[in-house]
Amino acid sequence: MPTPFILMLRARRGPDQWVAREEYDVLPSVPVSEFTDPYGNVCQRLIAQPGPFALFCSAEVMVPDQIAQAPGAPFIEIQHLPTEALSYLLPSRYCESDRLYALASDITWNCLPGYDQVAAVEHWLRTNIRYEPGTSPVPVSAIEVRQRSSGVCRDLSHLGIALCRALSIPARLVVGYLHQLEPMDMHAWFEAYVGGQWYTFDATQSGRKGGYVAVGYGRDAADVAIYNQYGPPVFPIEHYVTVEELQR
Amino acid sequence: MPTPFILMLRARRGPDQWVAREEYDVLPSVPVSEFTDPYGNVCQRLIAQPGPFALFCSAEVMVPDQIAQAPGAPFIEIQHLPTEALSYLLPSRYCESDRLYALASDITWNCLPGYDQVAAVEHWLRTNIRYEPGTSPVPVSAIEVRQRSSGVCRDLSHLGIALCRALSIPARLVVGYLHQLEPMDMHAWFEAYVGGQWYTFDATQSGRKGGYVAVGYGRDAADVAIYNQYGPPVFPIEHYVTVEELQR
Amino acid sequence: MPTPFILMLRARRGPDQWVAREEYDVLPSVPVSEFTDPYGNVCQRLIAQPGPFALFCSAEVMVPDQIAQAPGAPFIEIQHLPTEALSYLLPSRYCESDRLYALASDITWNCLPGYDQVAAVEHWLRTNIRYEPGTSPVPVSAIEVRQRSSGVCRDLSHLGIALCRALSIPARLVVGYLHQLEPMDMHAWFEAYVGGQWYTFDATQSGRKGGYVAVGYGRDAADVAIYNQYGPPVFPIEHYVTVEELQR
Amino acid sequence: MPTPFILMLRARRGPDQWVAREEYDVLPSVPVSEFTDPYGNVCQRLIAQPGPFALFCSAEVMVPDQIAQAPGAPFIEIQHLPTEALSYLLPSRYCESDRLYALASDITWNCLPGYDQVAAVEHWLRTNIRYEPGTSPVPVSAIEVRQRSSGVCRDLSHLGIALCRALSIPARLVVGYLHQLEPMDMHAWFEAYVGGQWYTFDATQSGRKGGYVAVGYGRDAADVAIYNQYGPPVFPIEHYVTVEELQR
Repeated sequence: MPTPFILMLRARRGPDQWVAREEYDVLPSVPVSEFTDPYGNVCQRLIAQPGPFALFCSAEVMVPDQIAQAPGAPFIEIQHLPTEALSYLLPSRYCESDRLYALASDITWNCLPGYDQVAAVEHWLRTNIRYEPGTSPVPVSAIEVRQRSSGVCRDLSHLGIALCRALSIPARLVVGYLHQLEPMDMHAWFEAYVGGQWYTFDATQSGRKGGYVAVGYGRDAADVAIYNQYGPPVFPIEHYVTVEELQR
Repeated sequence: MPTPFILMLRARRGPDQWVAREEYDVLPSVPVSEFTDPYGNVCQRLIAQPGPFALFCSAEVMVPDQIAQAPGAPFIEIQHLPTEALSYLLPSRYCESDRLYALASDITWNCLPGYDQVAAVEHWLRTNIRYEPGTSPVPVSAIEVRQRSSGVCRDLSHLGIALCRALSIPARLVVGYLHQLEPMDMHAWFEAYVGGQWYTFDATQSGRKGGYVAVGYGRDAADVAIYNQYGPPVFPIEHYVTVEELQR
Repeated sequence: MPTPFILMLRARRGPDQWVAREEYDVLPSVPVSEFTDPYGNVCQRLIAQPGPFALFCSAEVMVPDQIAQAPGAPFIEIQHLPTEALSYLLPSRYCESDRLYALASDITWNCLPGYDQVAAVEHWLRTNIRYEPGTSPVPVSAIEVRQRSSGVCRDLSHLGIALCRALSIPARLVVGYLHQLEPMDMHAWFEAYVGGQWYTFDATQSGRKGGYVAVGYGRDAADVAIYNQYGPPVFPIEHYVTVEELQR
Repeated sequence: MPTPFILMLRARRGPDQWVAREEYDVLPSVPVSEFTDPYGNVCQRLIAQPGPFALFCSAEVMVPDQIAQAPGAPFIEIQHLPTEALSYLLPSRYCESDRLYALASDITWNCLPGYDQVAAVEHWLRTNIRYEPGTSPVPVSAIEVRQRSSGVCRDLSHLGIALCRALSIPARLVVGYLHQLEPMDMHAWFEAYVGGQWYTFDATQSGRKGGYVAVGYGRDAADVAIYNQYGPPVFPIEHYVTVEELQR
């Protein structure tokens, strides 16, 4: 039975991420219609016919070697936030920030408002939620992650995002690739808006090593599923991911 | 202490809703900055100073007398939906459509796909979830509404939306006014996209009487709070709503 | 014969312009569909039936008493301009900036790049192009205005805009109302982007008195016709404009 | 002296144009910032340092073999046009449609309104304006093209667009590549909106052969310069273009 898909597989283009080469193959070839979602992600709509169906994406992307850090970067008051950041303040499907005020305050009670609060949230996640690499088929929400005290990269990010929003700090999920991730797979991390720009946080990694390639931004995993398939599920989906450093 | 607000109080302008007159007073007067959110709602950002603070909004709006109905209007396949409708297919904070597939199938098992499914969902809500007019300060989610078997207008809408999305039918929350609502207050209902357009559904009312004035659209109540206040809560907020029919 | 119109008559909402009250009547009443154009102007589409047809618009708008001035505000280099400003750098129907480099250089040869250049352009217009209040039915272009050495408010603005763009300074036309304009009518002026924001310039007025109410922004008069009527012309269109100061 | 550039070199992604592979090199490597303009074109902003500077773009794009034709496709009345098409009705820098009503009526006096009018315009261009392949450094406008009775591909398109708009038919310029263009170079053609969709017209070619790869859309050449360079001109710019058919 023909199955419609919406896919989000192209590397984002942006100020810190230059896509020098990109390749996208659909086999067998079917008509693909592209559109841009409200978060600026380029998505593909297509209908897979019955039988084997494969997608190959490859890109050569220039990204920073190091994640920017900014201890002391101040909290931005609501009235001074850029319009685009406002929707990242609201609770969303997997980030119930409206029920995490107390925990967020506890974690950050002695921090300067702003970057230091987010750094404290990231540190708390690293210390309190066990990171279990791998993929869980069904996303769970921040409240559930907190109860389980463990999760995949997406789960830690959801809880981090919900805690930031509970502090009135805009936060968003990023899905993409990370160089030297162990084991290699798609990855998820989060960004928080403090001191007038978005900063990257990742509770699954230590150090501030770069190599992050963003594929999709959104309020949480509901917005940035790399694929949404509608209709009866398709099995199995094999999924290979590799990331290599290029010398230029 | 000065308190930032984001407000959503202007009647929407659209094909079926003509705003002939509008008034918006802020007392005491403070600078107001307006912006349009990703759902097309016009929002106001302002900072209320300590002391009494009041907002008066009034509008004269022409809307249909009757809600459009379309039994038999077909389900629109994913690949033919307009781009704008796609984000209304995803689960959201208060509409966990990803966990309601079984219920949605049960309710609609003998329906033609499309309008008739949504009508069956609306009928099921009317019969199974007790409508309790009034305001609940904290929104609860579709799953919680189902467990409680009762709720305010917003709660019934959230469950209706989540059930539609579980059937791959785009659905969105509308917040606004309804002529002759008893008791009078802000109101919430939902729209579903079938047969190539959005149709209005409201499980709290019987008949297909019109008089709906839309103020905000969104995925759920997280997107269309008529006010979001940041910082320590402000008490009390008195809130008066009146809707009258005008003869012209 | 029914005649389609696209109208642009609502006061803009923005950071420096708060619309406290607004009224818009169409007589006889016909369906009106509203949309927002690429410049953020709210437009109305409607079809006037044969016979008398009238529009009444009225608004209560709070605007600054004084036009902001910023001698010395610097030129912003192309790479630092906000994306939204870039389309205001290009030549347009009535602003042939691509043919005015020499004149623009002559007028501003001894100015600091930025605000002072625009002020010199405004001064040059005031001194070299005779302002003839009134309405000319057909817009003429900057090059033609220069040849005629006279023009209505719109014409002076077109030449001012074209000269700014020839200097790589973004400039846009504003159509709207001006308190105490003599004789009272719709008015047109221009804004230039220097020192990180848009500043108002008006070669038809002396002093920096405020009272400007913006109705439409665009690259030139082709974008901000307050009405575009399609099909055989409709005669006569009576047009009354009044602007009063309100005490609050 | 460092020179800022805005470039528009990526093949568009759209319903009829699938970009399977893309490569974009900037030598020497400099930071590039990408943004999307109001017409949906992806643009690059960068600053070229003094010295040699080169750009290499290459893409593998699937496009139709034949241009769609639709004799008899009807004129769409203003009130039924999609909002996005409305700005392509207005006169623009190089398309003075406001001064071509008489010529447009003459050319199409015996045509059914719609596609057949545009086909008549295209035929008239082919017969009355001599196509001179090559590049003219400075764009000239529709009125000027008519006076000269000859022009490059861009000039013929400008006149075609202006004539369509004079008939209240939305029309837009497309810049891109054409397979087997003789001599090979960047190319320009136009699209007109009739019968509910955009159709391709090209007065420089005979037959309805496909192989068109769109790079930029806009109202005219002012919007879709493949590069805009600001500051003192840079010489020489060598420019090589090749288009090959791929077997897959």
